[in-house]
Amino acid sequence: MLSVNEAITTLLSQARCLAGSEACDLFEALGRTLAGDVVATIDVPPADNSAMDGYALRRADWAGAEQPLPLSQRVTAGSVPGELAPGTAARIFTGAEVPGSADTVVMQEHCEGTSESVRILHCPPEGANIRRRGQDISVGQKVLSAGQRLRSQDLGLAASLGVASVSVRQRLKVAILSTGDELVEPGESAGPGQIYNSNRFTMKGQLAAWGFDVVDLGVARDRLEVVRECMTRAAEQADVIITSGGVSVGEEDHVKDVVESLGSLDLWRIAIKPGKPFAFGQVLGKPFIGLPGNPVSVFVTLLVIARPYLLACQGIADTTVQPVAGFSGFAKKASQREDYLRVRATESGLELFPNQSSGVLFSACWGDGFVRQKAAEVIEEGGRVDYLPFGLFD
Amino acid sequence: MLSVNEAITTLLSQARCLAGSEACDLFEALGRTLAGDVVATIDVPPADNSAMDGYALRRADWAGAEQPLPLSQRVTAGSVPGELAPGTAARIFTGAEVPGSADTVVMQEHCEGTSESVRILHCPPEGANIRRRGQDISVGQKVLSAGQRLRSQDLGLAASLGVASVSVRQRLKVAILSTGDELVEPGESAGPGQIYNSNRFTMKGQLAAWGFDVVDLGVARDRLEVVRECMTRAAEQADVIITSGGVSVGEEDHVKDVVESLGSLDLWRIAIKPGKPFAFGQVLGKPFIGLPGNPVSVFVTLLVIARPYLLACQGIADTTVQPVAGFSGFAKKASQREDYLRVRATESGLELFPNQSSGVLFSACWGDGFVRQKAAEVIEEGGRVDYLPFGLFD
Repeated sequence: MLSVNEAITTLLSQARCLAGSEACDLFEALGRTLAGDVVATIDVPPADNSAMDGYALRRADWAGAEQPLPLSQRVTAGSVPGELAPGTAARIFTGAEVPGSADTVVMQEHCEGTSESVRILHCPPEGANIRRRGQDISVGQKVLSAGQRLRSQDLGLAASLGVASVSVRQRLKVAILSTGDELVEPGESAGPGQIYNSNRFTMKGQLAAWGFDVVDLGVARDRLEVVRECMTRAAEQADVIITSGGVSVGEEDHVKDVVESLGSLDLWRIAIKPGKPFAFGQVLGKPFIGLPGNPVSVFVTLLVIARPYLLACQGIADTTVQPVAGFSGFAKKASQREDYLRVRATESGLELFPNQSSGVLFSACWGDGFVRQKAAEVIEEGGRVDYLPFGLFD
Repeated sequence: MLSVNEAITTLLSQARCLAGSEACDLFEALGRTLAGDVVATIDVPPADNSAMDGYALRRADWAGAEQPLPLSQRVTAGSVPGELAPGTAARIFTGAEVPGSADTVVMQEHCEGTSESVRILHCPPEGANIRRRGQDISVGQKVLSAGQRLRSQDLGLAASLGVASVSVRQRLKVAILSTGDELVEPGESAGPGQIYNSNRFTMKGQLAAWGFDVVDLGVARDRLEVVRECMTRAAEQADVIITSGGVSVGEEDHVKDVVESLGSLDLWRIAIKPGKPFAFGQVLGKPFIGLPGNPVSVFVTLLVIARPYLLACQGIADTTVQPVAGFSGFAKKASQREDYLRVRATESGLELFPNQSSGVLFSACWGDGFVRQKAAEVIEEGGRVDYLPFGLFD
């Protein structure tokens, strides 16, 4: 069996960016992946400016609280100051450019000003309350890197550099396909022997949350020609194909036959729980991922195994998820496989959902994250464990 | 000064859900907020079914590996089995309904089968490999609660219950407005004294990431009548109004005057760093939040102070963010205010961005989270600290 790390590493070694690039208005760029670095072409701030509402002066001109300085100008944010006349002060506001020759700003709370002069009661050292040109960013600095996903603060930073449009990766097109004669769609009535198709919604939701363009091919009935036709369409329309269920050694599994006839398929045994049967191959040249059929197995393998590969295909550079330190509210014996336990953070530590069956998707809805129990690891109550809040997989 | 907790609690005590409800197709419900509970109307699974590909039998009928059982039926997923004839076995596949009277499933790896009979080499105990009716969810059980945001697994769970449409909160409409004569838009050229408007992008991106409907009113010039006109439109079009900059004691701040004339305004001094000046009030009956003007202050106060209130206005029940345990890679003296330090997780602990100025938004782009340094807390290198990955604020 492959370890989880080996499976991820093997997949990543075969991943390449499958998404082209396109220009994207900064207003629409949230969550998109940069196709090129963003390099500063201006200094931020572009000039020395005031960090306070107050008065700008040459520090050397201050002769104590009893010697008012005449006001020679008034500088608001957005206006262009002149050179500061010697022996004078300028009224100045937060964000306003500091006049030439002024070297200090005094906050107004330390001043008594009239419209004509100001008494400075306490004068801070030279340089105080001035934000320097280029303090935030200087020309030529790489501020955002190709392969990163744009968050709100990244948009703010790009905007602060005057960037109105960025080069991003086109959204990766991921086709999803469920198989099984027992599946009916929500809203329909389920007869005897039928179950509602939940994997389609879990997969579609999660892939959409990652920003992919989901090509939903619905449910293929368990007939060879139907599966073959669906799979061909998937390969024509998408960059990557994902299915759930249907890939095992069972007699009724046509997905395996179809993928092998249209491309190639490897069945992997990964030491992960839940989620053992995992398939990887290609269909008409497009990567194919076959997730297990059980709902929690789909959720776990999608987040843990498929995610890094899919993000790499999207052109995302860093696909790692760093666990955080958690403290277990439960004890658990060692397992032979790496176990992704559904837990919830509480005041008294991480609480385990009582039913960890791979059929019980409710465990993942009740929970807010995983405890990752490595193979052979014994979990002691109160002991430190690897905790992976679901939010870290976004 | 208010502590951060006091500020959040005070805001939350004044929050009420401002969003109406609407029906939403499950396919479109990712990230939406439930307006009502989802209660199971069916059992999941709806009937006992097989956890394996194998053979179903009455456990009592097994008389050892040397006594093959004739096959009386073949049950695939989706088909409806008959009662199991005594002294026989049924071929069965994963997910298929277990025939009546069968009480055990044997995995096929422990069998030698032909088309007519099966030799069971090892027979597990009665009840093995059967997933029981209602094991996942039973009728009447509340599985998803009003006020929770729908994640991919929640969509999967709702689907597994046959739910095709859910009642969700309409997206909260949040108006944003920047003020300042010094602001120019990305793509334009910035003259002397002018700076690019970054807060608009940070705010718009973050509010969109939370699923709100952003009403972007652009930039209001620093003139009373312009600000008044913008603020009136904001109150007409949105449920909540947010501005950045413009609310302080400076002479050039018209936002304060306008809000006071159209409604009411409190200026809060919150013991948070960065981000001290914070305003809360109402404009023509609509809640008004005035964030500070510095880019990191906007980011921090939006995530830490405004977020819980906004989510509550959206109808979201749990707005808390639970910090995780981190280990500091740096030492830092105590501060009088609660300090949200921009850090990055590394192998050797959390690394501090060297420039923590509120003007340097790059710190939040370089970083992956905050260390929350409580007032008067001393941070020791290697010591345990409260770490808040940005992903937790989603």
